[in-house]
Parts: sequence; structure tokens; C-alpha cells
Amino acid sequence: MKVKYNLIKVDKGCKARLGTLETNYGTVETPMFMPVGTRAAVKGLTTDQVKECGSGIILANTYHLWLRPGEDIVNEAGGLHKFMNYDGPILTDSGGFQVFSLAHNKKDITEEGVHFKSHIDGTKLLLTPEKSIEIQNKLDSDIAMSFDECPPASADYDYLKNSVERTLRWAARGKAVHKNPNQSLFGIVQGGPHEDLRRYSAEETVKMDFDGYSIGGVANDGESKEDMYKAIDYSIPYLPTDKVRYLMGVGEPVDLLEGVERGVDIFDCVLPTRIARHGQAFTRTGKINLNNSKFAHDFTPIESDCDCYTCKHYTRGYLRHLITVGESLGGSLISIHNIRFLIKMMEEIRESIKKDSFLDYKREFLSKYKN
Amino acid sequence: MKVKYNLIKVDKGCKARLGTLETNYGTVETPMFMPVGTRAAVKGLTTDQVKECGSGIILANTYHLWLRPGEDIVNEAGGLHKFMNYDGPILTDSGGFQVFSLAHNKKDITEEGVHFKSHIDGTKLLLTPEKSIEIQNKLDSDIAMSFDECPPASADYDYLKNSVERTLRWAARGKAVHKNPNQSLFGIVQGGPHEDLRRYSAEETVKMDFDGYSIGGVANDGESKEDMYKAIDYSIPYLPTDKVRYLMGVGEPVDLLEGVERGVDIFDCVLPTRIARHGQAFTRTGKINLNNSKFAHDFTPIESDCDCYTCKHYTRGYLRHLITVGESLGGSLISIHNIRFLIKMMEEIRESIKKDSFLDYKREFLSKYKN
Repeated sequence: MKVKYNLIKVDKGCKARLGTLETNYGTVETPMFMPVGTRAAVKGLTTDQVKECGSGIILANTYHLWLRPGEDIVNEAGGLHKFMNYDGPILTDSGGFQVFSLAHNKKDITEEGVHFKSHIDGTKLLLTPEKSIEIQNKLDSDIAMSFDECPPASADYDYLKNSVERTLRWAARGKAVHKNPNQSLFGIVQGGPHEDLRRYSAEETVKMDFDGYSIGGVANDGESKEDMYKAIDYSIPYLPTDKVRYLMGVGEPVDLLEGVERGVDIFDCVLPTRIARHGQAFTRTGKINLNNSKFAHDFTPIESDCDCYTCKHYTRGYLRHLITVGESLGGSLISIHNIRFLIKMMEEIRESIKKDSFLDYKREFLSKYKN
Repeated sequence: MKVKYNLIKVDKGCKARLGTLETNYGTVETPMFMPVGTRAAVKGLTTDQVKECGSGIILANTYHLWLRPGEDIVNEAGGLHKFMNYDGPILTDSGGFQVFSLAHNKKDITEEGVHFKSHIDGTKLLLTPEKSIEIQNKLDSDIAMSFDECPPASADYDYLKNSVERTLRWAARGKAVHKNPNQSLFGIVQGGPHEDLRRYSAEETVKMDFDGYSIGGVANDGESKEDMYKAIDYSIPYLPTDKVRYLMGVGEPVDLLEGVERGVDIFDCVLPTRIARHGQAFTRTGKINLNNSKFAHDFTPIESDCDCYTCKHYTRGYLRHLITVGESLGGSLISIHNIRFLIKMMEEIRESIKKDSFLDYKREFLSKYKN
């Protein structure tokens, strides 16, 4: 089935919206945060550990899975769910962001697609809108993303204008070859921080009638928070209220709040797992760095009132030890906490919208959270 | 309390013995295999995951924990059990093996102890029999090991003779300062592959009346299987039947069988976790290397009749993918299987001894297991 978004209510104080998304793997609640399983694994965690964090949809990366193990192998395994043992909904990105950011520097963007070299072995590859969709069809995720151009934050207006046009043409080409009846396809709004480009991109993308819409071109290196919020503000008004809205690559608590306030339903980010592997943990008063020697003698949990597995079983002092000596268990345990932190935050956000008190929640949260 | 070994029975066909060991953290059954948590963590696994493998006693390393985070921090946390969140029995080694094998090459063995440089930062350190026991007292493991000299497999008879004498003096010095009333202290039999030295070492060590006895000086680089079996054969007859016997550092399935047949009760080894991180998994027909490309399309578990978490949830093809792309989850999942494999083997061995059919079990096992 295609995903179906049900709007339950909009907060009376802002655009924050409460909803549900019906998927092949059950109904999930929004706003929600999706943990990222780049290479068909949320780094260091079993899928049961991910689910214990309260996960709904998780994200996997088309670019990485295309290169290794290859979409045919995943398909042969019975699709991504069976391959990675996740019986919840899975969204795959288009591979575009990785091709533009991760692939070897020299890339050649043509109307056909993007010529680039594999970041693994330098092999010359071509990713096109059609290829991206074909790969995702085979991966058999519940939600596929259209292949878009991801321009750098430094791109000027004229570049972005052309890029928006190209992304629209690419979206149409991808949609034309999309064949998996159990997979939804989302369109992506581009246009940088420019109101007219965002509006144009949103309106034209919506005309193509996708199953959901994403706001792309944010979370790029060097992008300012202001530009990110503009990108959302200038896109949202032109998206239909009966389709889900997904802000790609965003996971800082403050940005989740700003996104929700503006009407975003879904977020994803590698942040909680990436910073965990470097010893950083979310707390209600901001991130803490467990490498700090002051934590060596701290035998309390990361957060004493947290309900995650890590906080119920392990102390800051122990986690610091693991991180300091390079035991991968440290990164896994802090990842569990960080993922649970963002998912719990989303649960609280949903409760606040129910009570039309999202802005109070946001104010309260930010009055304590510093960094 | 001190550990108490209860001999239930000896197999009618050989010296294999079935028993229980009463500890501060419950009664465990022997023969048993102890997973190794070198730095207060079985690499990549939560303690719940270790327990789900059926673990009884686990081992932690005094040398590593002395260097980082330091025994005082572990003590301040409430001891190793609380520090690492393991509510089963824990055995600590003496640090001797690591000082002799891992520390920077240049070491100076004196009567006082071993002068060496830290493998982490080159700091000059001195580990003595007293210091080893003091550290272990603070770590608060259930079982501490005496500090012994671990000569290389190439050591000649005269060297080993002197080494045995020194190990006896060191054992006495360690015993004299051992103060933790909740911690048992084991003596270690040395003497290489020489019958007279093993007998002398065993008899003199037993005279000191330890809570259990270990057979050391095996599993060294370059040691032959024959020398290992000799070391066991020449030590066991002189150990009391009412104390538990521990063969240090041994974990190959064939060696577990040979050890049990000769009357060994406890084994430990990093093998199951170390080979797992390199993609190797135990099966009933021998080890398989999941890096092998033939497993890319194999969507069956490592072993279809295995009851471990990994075999119930993940396939060879997926594990191969994780190992190939360098996801640490791969090593963790294969570690779970490998640890469970050895623990399950021990469960079966105990069943076979109950039925006086250990030698049949061994023959049957080895008729299938090839490598």
C-alpha cells in the first residue's frame, strides 16, 4: 500500500501538526524522528535495540546499499526489511545527497544524471533519476525518495533556479519509472532560501502528485539556521495538508522544534549516532561530552529520569571508560540514549500539540537546553 | 563468600567431571566456558546480550583495568559488577599474561616483579605479586588469580625450573596480602610440558591451599597442542578433587574437549569474539569465514538449529554485508553466536558426562568439526 497521512489536529498556537501515517508496517505517529541505518544497520545496534528506543520509520541509504551489497542482493533477500530484520517501516533516500557530498570530488552533473566516482574504490558510476528509483524499487523500502540535485549552500540564485527546474524534470522521470506498488514515492522541494524558488518548486512538485513531500537542500555544510528556517517557511504553505512533510537531514533538538513549529512531520539525521560514537550524549540541559575527565567518577546515568536501556543499566563513568579505551560498546550504548532522547522528545511534542501547548513545550525545552 | 566446588560425578569413560561452583552471584555449572570482557566489556555486547548466551562466570583483565580506568575508579563505582553491570560471577586474571605478552617489548623480570612499559603510552610501570592482588581486591571480582611468570613456549627446562620456583614465591607473597573476604584466590600451576616441574609446581601450590587451581603457561604463541595436553596431563593428578580447575586462555572447540576429558572445569578465551570481528563463525562442521563471497547470497542463519539471538534474527548474507562494509554490528552479532556456540557445547558436554558418554560426544563432535 501507499502511505496515508491523517491529520489529527493543528496546534492552536502555531503550525505544529499532529498526525498518523499508515504504512505497510503499521501506523506511526507524527511528528517523528527517524534513526538512520546508513548501510542497512543503525550503527552498532540490533534492530531490537532500535525498536526499544520507540522507533517508527527508519532510514536507509540508497547510495551505500547500491554500492554494497548491491540492490539485487537485498532484493534476493526479500527486500530491506528481511535483509536487515526490521519489521517497521523503512524509508530510503535517493542517493542524491551522498552522490553530491560523499562521492569523490570530481563529479559531472548532466541532464542525464550525475557521473561520479565511488568513494570506496574510485569506480566510475552514473546515478540517474531512473536508476535511483529502480534501485529503491528493488530495495523494497516503504517510502522511496525522488532523485534531486543537492546544490551546495553557497549556490547563487541563478544556479538554484536552474537546479530547481532540473530537479522537477528528474522527479518526473523518476515517477515515470516507479513500479513498486507497495512503495510510496515522495517528491522533494528545493530552491535554497529563496521564497519564489521554494514556492515554484513546491507548487510544481505537488502538481505531480507524490505520496508525500520532502523539504530538501537543507542541512548542507555551511548553511545557516536562518536559511534552513526560510527554506521550511517558504515551502510548507504550498504543500497539501493531507500529505506528510519530511525535513531531510535535520536532528539538532532546536531544529526539530523549529521544524515542528513550522508544520514538519518527519525528520531524520545521523547526528544522534555520530556524536555518540565520539562520546557526546544529549541531556535536557544540552549535550555533554563523556570524554571529559570529570565524568570518570560519575556513577549516575546520563539522565537519571531517562527510560532508555543505557540509562537504566549503565553509568556516565562506565560509558566514559568505554569511549576512552575505544570499546565500540560505548558508542552503541550512547547511541541508544541519543536516539531515545530524540524519539522521547517527539513523543512529548505530540502530547503538547494534543493540548495546544507546543509553544509552551518549546519555550520550556529551550530554557533548559543550552548548546 | 569463597567459591565452593561440588563434584557431582566423574564420567566413567575418562576424567571428565561434572560439578557446580557456588559463588557470590549464584551457583554455576561446570565444565564451563567463560567469555572474556578484557576492558570490563565483552567487545561489542551489552551484559544482557552476554547473559542471553547463557554465560556463567565472565573474565575481566586486571592489566587493562589497572591502566584504564584504574582500580580506584572501579572500586569507587562499587566494584566490577556494578561498574560493568554484570550480576553474575566475575573472574579477574592477574595481569601477568598481559605484562609478559602485551606490554612494550623491553621488560625486566626481577624477584620483586616485572618492570615494563605501558602498551598505551610507554609509561614505566612495575607490577608485583602484591600489586596484582591489591588491584584485584579493589576490582572486587569474585575470583582473583595469583600473579605468575608466563614464560614463552620456547623457554628451556632450566628457565622453567627457576620460573616455577619464582611463581611459587610470588603466589605466597600475593596470598599474604590478599584481603578481600568476598573474593576467592586461585593458585596457578606452571612448568611447561615437563612432568616433574608440573608435579612439583602443582604439589607446592596446593600446599598453599588456594580456593581453586589454574593450569597456566598454556595457549602461548608457538606452543604445540601436544605440549598443552601434556601440561594438563602432568598437572591434574596433583590437584585436589574438591577444588575447581581452570585452564587459562583456551577456547578452540577441540581443546575444550581435550581439556574436559583430562578433568578441566573452566576455560576462557578471546577466540570467539576475536575471530567474530574478522568475520569467522563457529559451526558444527568447523569455522566459516563470512567474508567469503559465496555467503553474499546465503540468506540462512549461521546455523539453522542454533538458538542464539543472531541465528534467530540474522542471515549469513546480512552478516557478510556488515563485515564487508565494516559495520561493528557484524562483529557483535557473530560474537553472540560464537560465544553461544561454546557455551552450548559446554551444556551438551555436561549432559554427556551425566550419561557417562562424554567420549561418545567428543567422537561425534570431532567427526563433524573440521578445522
